[in-house]
Amino acid sequence: MTEFDAVWLNANLATMQAGSEPYGAITDAAIAVKDGRIAWLGPKSELPAFDALSTPLYDVQGQWLMPGLIDCHTHLVYGGNRANEFEMRLQGASYEAIAKAGGGIRSTVKATREASAEQLFVLGKDRLNALLSQGVTEVEIKSGYGLDLASEQKMLQVARELAVHHPIRIHTTFLGAHALPPEFSDSDAYIDYLCQTMLPELHRQQLVDAVDVFCEGIGFSVEQSRRLFQTATALGLPVKAHAEQLSNLGGSALVAEFGGLSADHIEYLDEAGVQAMAKAGTVAVLLPGAFYFLKETKKPPIELLRRYQVPMAIATDLNPGTSPLCNLPLMLNMACTFFALTPEEALLGVTRHAATALGIRDAGTLAIGNKADFGCYAISQPAELVYQQGVNSLRQLVVNGMPVVIPGCP
Amino acid sequence: MTEFDAVWLNANLATMQAGSEPYGAITDAAIAVKDGRIAWLGPKSELPAFDALSTPLYDVQGQWLMPGLIDCHTHLVYGGNRANEFEMRLQGASYEAIAKAGGGIRSTVKATREASAEQLFVLGKDRLNALLSQGVTEVEIKSGYGLDLASEQKMLQVARELAVHHPIRIHTTFLGAHALPPEFSDSDAYIDYLCQTMLPELHRQQLVDAVDVFCEGIGFSVEQSRRLFQTATALGLPVKAHAEQLSNLGGSALVAEFGGLSADHIEYLDEAGVQAMAKAGTVAVLLPGAFYFLKETKKPPIELLRRYQVPMAIATDLNPGTSPLCNLPLMLNMACTFFALTPEEALLGVTRHAATALGIRDAGTLAIGNKADFGCYAISQPAELVYQQGVNSLRQLVVNGMPVVIPGCP
Ligand SMILES: [Zn+2]
Ligand SMILES: [Zn+2]
Repeated sequence: MTEFDAVWLNANLATMQAGSEPYGAITDAAIAVKDGRIAWLGPKSELPAFDALSTPLYDVQGQWLMPGLIDCHTHLVYGGNRANEFEMRLQGASYEAIAKAGGGIRSTVKATREASAEQLFVLGKDRLNALLSQGVTEVEIKSGYGLDLASEQKMLQVARELAVHHPIRIHTTFLGAHALPPEFSDSDAYIDYLCQTMLPELHRQQLVDAVDVFCEGIGFSVEQSRRLFQTATALGLPVKAHAEQLSNLGGSALVAEFGGLSADHIEYLDEAGVQAMAKAGTVAVLLPGAFYFLKETKKPPIELLRRYQVPMAIATDLNPGTSPLCNLPLMLNMACTFFALTPEEALLGVTRHAATALGIRDAGTLAIGNKADFGCYAISQPAELVYQQGVNSLRQLVVNGMPVVIPGCP
Repeated sequence: MTEFDAVWLNANLATMQAGSEPYGAITDAAIAVKDGRIAWLGPKSELPAFDALSTPLYDVQGQWLMPGLIDCHTHLVYGGNRANEFEMRLQGASYEAIAKAGGGIRSTVKATREASAEQLFVLGKDRLNALLSQGVTEVEIKSGYGLDLASEQKMLQVARELAVHHPIRIHTTFLGAHALPPEFSDSDAYIDYLCQTMLPELHRQQLVDAVDVFCEGIGFSVEQSRRLFQTATALGLPVKAHAEQLSNLGGSALVAEFGGLSADHIEYLDEAGVQAMAKAGTVAVLLPGAFYFLKETKKPPIELLRRYQVPMAIATDLNPGTSPLCNLPLMLNMACTFFALTPEEALLGVTRHAATALGIRDAGTLAIGNKADFGCYAISQPAELVYQQGVNSLRQLVVNGMPVVIPGCP
């Protein structure tokens, strides 16, 4: 008889695998786990014989099982918050007045530098718990509010520490090239410092899984981004970029040129950029929360992305300045409402395609051999996860083959 | 010594009372309850002597206390859901094709008619629990998916039953004039039926706290609404309307003419309508969730409402067709993002002004004699509740002076 550690019965599986069925669905199914991995899945009638007396069985009575959700773009570790700035802005204060009052990204840099690792850990854990309660099991976390070696190191160490003490698997990204720190007046000199000192040192400490850059008129140029990517590539690190959010500089094509993981935001991406991404297998990461919060009107080129079959991921972009929205299901709804994605495209964007955006091969779909991470939802069809907000239909969350307790409920 | 049932110490109070301080704030404060009511509140230094040994004490260590939140416009009791229709629409199906597939409000009427009271109760309880976890303690629930006597009665009975078995206080509204039921082809005849039979009968059964109408080109005319309001007034019931959402018919002015509670949606409201509401003390209920979900572009006349000092409330409009968003804090954020309300205006919209919209006199503010309903939030300023979404900062919810357990967390 086959040996399993646990079996879920009477499930509908949204495997999210490519195939003829929408959502890769298998109805009236079962799924079995062994050593933290998916050991078997398929129609319940084909479930191999196993020792039903000594194996934990979960009868989920027609619930839908989805792969653990993946938030592939967050700035989840940060100090302070910008509620004050939000309030000033709505009271009619000018950007100048807000900047004078210490607002903007510099306020977050200041608060993050001043916060202890312990304080950042507690704040980050609360945010991870919120995501966990939404069915999220993989999260990318960027640095980028330290902007000096010690503070960037602190942010990435906190991210690594969170990974040890939290069921969510964490992927770190070095975003030293997020903004020019107050200590530098010359952005070329800062890029030099990143390439020569900060990135090699943080890489040596094994704190970096990928390298990101804010490639924008108000950020860093394509040439500066290229230098950073060259350093990253030499260190064997994959690259990605915040690109084409406010203008079409060509950051996405640059990511593609380096065979990078993803180009994120991409509201202003043009057809040539889409083609380059398609060729390179670079994922388009859509961030509808920032689009919403910034009241943007220019939408990402969804039709072009579809035409050239560029995989689309969706993420929270959780950050205190432009997307204080720690809610991945809401992003699914916003991706449909603002960008007219279908619910299936939206759910692929937080499962299979989000895994690709992080270079993960063992999650994002329900498939034999994958990490046994999945949520059990009391819904009648997968689109409900996208459509309805606020009422949590997650009934059980399984990580590494074991149900997890979700803390942080009041 | 003064006798209290419990005392909260080291609190910051957002009393939401009118006065010189934003949010009616009292910092470094205390609040005491007796017999389910607020018995005392003020600076901690002025707290009268009480028996500290036998009185439960809660040291909230600088948390902010807000009145229990009020969702003054919901369609929370309904059967079925419209995820299928949502998906069809995003897959490019025409409205005709969706209607042919049984979509639109008629699908919700069908599902609600077919659902048993027990089924509706369970669905409604899940939604109420979600709101409770957000700090909501008062909810309005409309009928309007039955559209025949037995089904409208069933919806309102479920709402009353929920009130008995749930800590949230519930206010029922009869919305028989929501849509024309399939049994009627003549809307005048249906209004006659509502006025002569349905409303008097449901009122006799004490199921109705207020009367609402969908006053719109695709709903009921101002003249039909007037006849309904005349019947309501004769029965001693206050009135309100879904008005000026898609066009400027004058429904809001009609509500004002009857001294009604609120005009809701009001995207197309003009200055004369605003003036009429101001004179009558009618509340403007803003529904940013429906604005978002329907991708509306015409915004309510916020500047006019401010100029004439019409109180603005904010609600979820929770319903399966145009606002499947069971999330009141999200509505606060959307009211600021879409309509440029200040965070203080937004929070007044789910506290003091929402109470006014429901004709409630003993909730919506922290004040002596009021129902002792409040949430304790781990935030540094009230605007955080509006600004940040997803991470629940609610640490304790108190209803009738007692902490409640919040069910429904996965
Ligand atoms: Zn970002
Ligand atoms: Zn409504």
